[in-house]
Amino acid sequence: MIRVDEKLILRGGHMLFCTYIYEGQECVGIIDDNKQKVFDMKELFVKLGIAPPKDMIELIAMKSDDLIEDMEQLCDIASGIPMEEVRLTSPIPHPIRNVFCLGKNYHDHIKELAGKRIDSTGDIPEYPIYFTKAVSTITGPMDDVVMDRSVTTKVDYEVELVIIIGKDGKDIEVEDVYDHIFGYSIGNDFSARDLQANHRQWLKGKSLDTFCAMGPWIVHKCAIKDPHTLDIRCKVNGEVRQSSNTQYMIFDIPYIVSDLSKGLELRAGDIIFTGTPSGVGLGFDPPRFLKDGDVVECEIEGIGSFINTIKEV
Amino acid sequence: MIRVDEKLILRGGHMLFCTYIYEGQECVGIIDDNKQKVFDMKELFVKLGIAPPKDMIELIAMKSDDLIEDMEQLCDIASGIPMEEVRLTSPIPHPIRNVFCLGKNYHDHIKELAGKRIDSTGDIPEYPIYFTKAVSTITGPMDDVVMDRSVTTKVDYEVELVIIIGKDGKDIEVEDVYDHIFGYSIGNDFSARDLQANHRQWLKGKSLDTFCAMGPWIVHKCAIKDPHTLDIRCKVNGEVRQSSNTQYMIFDIPYIVSDLSKGLELRAGDIIFTGTPSGVGLGFDPPRFLKDGDVVECEIEGIGSFINTIKEV
Repeated sequence: MIRVDEKLILRGGHMLFCTYIYEGQECVGIIDDNKQKVFDMKELFVKLGIAPPKDMIELIAMKSDDLIEDMEQLCDIASGIPMEEVRLTSPIPHPIRNVFCLGKNYHDHIKELAGKRIDSTGDIPEYPIYFTKAVSTITGPMDDVVMDRSVTTKVDYEVELVIIIGKDGKDIEVEDVYDHIFGYSIGNDFSARDLQANHRQWLKGKSLDTFCAMGPWIVHKCAIKDPHTLDIRCKVNGEVRQSSNTQYMIFDIPYIVSDLSKGLELRAGDIIFTGTPSGVGLGFDPPRFLKDGDVVECEIEGIGSFINTIKEV
Repeated sequence: MIRVDEKLILRGGHMLFCTYIYEGQECVGIIDDNKQKVFDMKELFVKLGIAPPKDMIELIAMKSDDLIEDMEQLCDIASGIPMEEVRLTSPIPHPIRNVFCLGKNYHDHIKELAGKRIDSTGDIPEYPIYFTKAVSTITGPMDDVVMDRSVTTKVDYEVELVIIIGKDGKDIEVEDVYDHIFGYSIGNDFSARDLQANHRQWLKGKSLDTFCAMGPWIVHKCAIKDPHTLDIRCKVNGEVRQSSNTQYMIFDIPYIVSDLSKGLELRAGDIIFTGTPSGVGLGFDPPRFLKDGDVVECEIEGIGSFINTIKEV
């Protein structure tokens, strides 16, 4: 009998948590190491006599460390569903509040934007620049991103490493941050550059419906030895546009989580986008914004990749 | 038998919807015209044989127009609870997403801030400036506002007229906006001016825990003939600091709701703060920020008033 902890952790595997649609139902699952099957959490928990979580946030709030210890028994008693029979949604389709995001957190991205907007001076921020994307922007790793040309004509992509908070905490010390993280995911912070500039504060340009793609799953933190060593890429129609490494972040993960939590309690299930490297459409001269039918692929080493297609309406 | 529609509408009364704590339970209620009693919605709905709303957002989503027509029967069959026996909370204690806010929406406020921050140039914005306050900032009209001096030393007040969305809608036309509004409330957009400036985007300075006071209730739109004619005031320790009228908004309510809804579906229960007039602490020379024990009272004509006390920790 192969134990999940051996299979997924000791043998270098992934702890992949996902939300998916199967037979019309939204379910939380764990994906096997070969990414061939997904195991329904509800079924597994019921078989173990434990009340199942109703969604990913409840699963996360159960406390990841205990969960992983119990997990070894779970997958061995279920047959799983072939991955091709499910449709992955955003791993957290219904966030408890707007998605937290960082602007200008990679040196090269700041350089490429210098002078492109009134607030893009090219200087390195002394403090992290936080903004939010509305809850309603959340879209899945297999979904279309909707572009309404009567609202925006300058839609851009931004691949980002995403932190998923695992444990409530306020005024978290830098050295305690990883205790408060559940895992990592990949995000595409789609941005309407015209609205972002016009409205000065970035909310509106960042919050059009479907503009927050996330997926394909959450990798538990135990499977990512150091989140600051990961290659991060974004391709548009197969062409590599963004290619960097998370080591080039200006504010690292312990700093971000600790700083954001000052006077503001972070909660299990909170989502934090950590900024994007250079190569966005706005950085080109002339800018290369997205258009109908464009296929945008985001990829981060050790996590996975996903594709969204731009759909003009 | 006095009918609610006569009592509250035809006779110039208020349609006041509140959330309150009574015997440890969070309840939704309607307050009588003399503000002496609150009627529990759950009890009223059950007596009428209708499934009761579980919270204010569900009540709002039931569609206000039908609700008002039915309401006449409700209050006549219950005895109500004396107001002094309940504790009012924010009328929407658990928003579905972050609170939408407008910055710089009164001419005189722009003038008083000119040159006080790098992003305060004194010019009238061509487009509304939208930002958010995190869901977790919500605090009630009888609660303390917590100021942690290790996080901020420059806490400011901002009284604002608050719009409560009553019906889902995207790309709402200006002439249809009032169909999508449920009612109005009063907000105090407490702001940490040091964080607001340091982090450039305003989220962090606007999102410290307890920094979004709202109340004391929601007045149904039918009781406010024109939301652009209301006196709006804020007092600190009894001294009038802000005193203006909602007629001085730069972007009016139809414009705000229509513009915000472009490409971004507004939902029943959404909260929109519409900006603050002059008289904030930052506008004084030297600035007059809040300190432990300060009592801040917000008041808007035709809605009511509420008080928060600053509590340093």
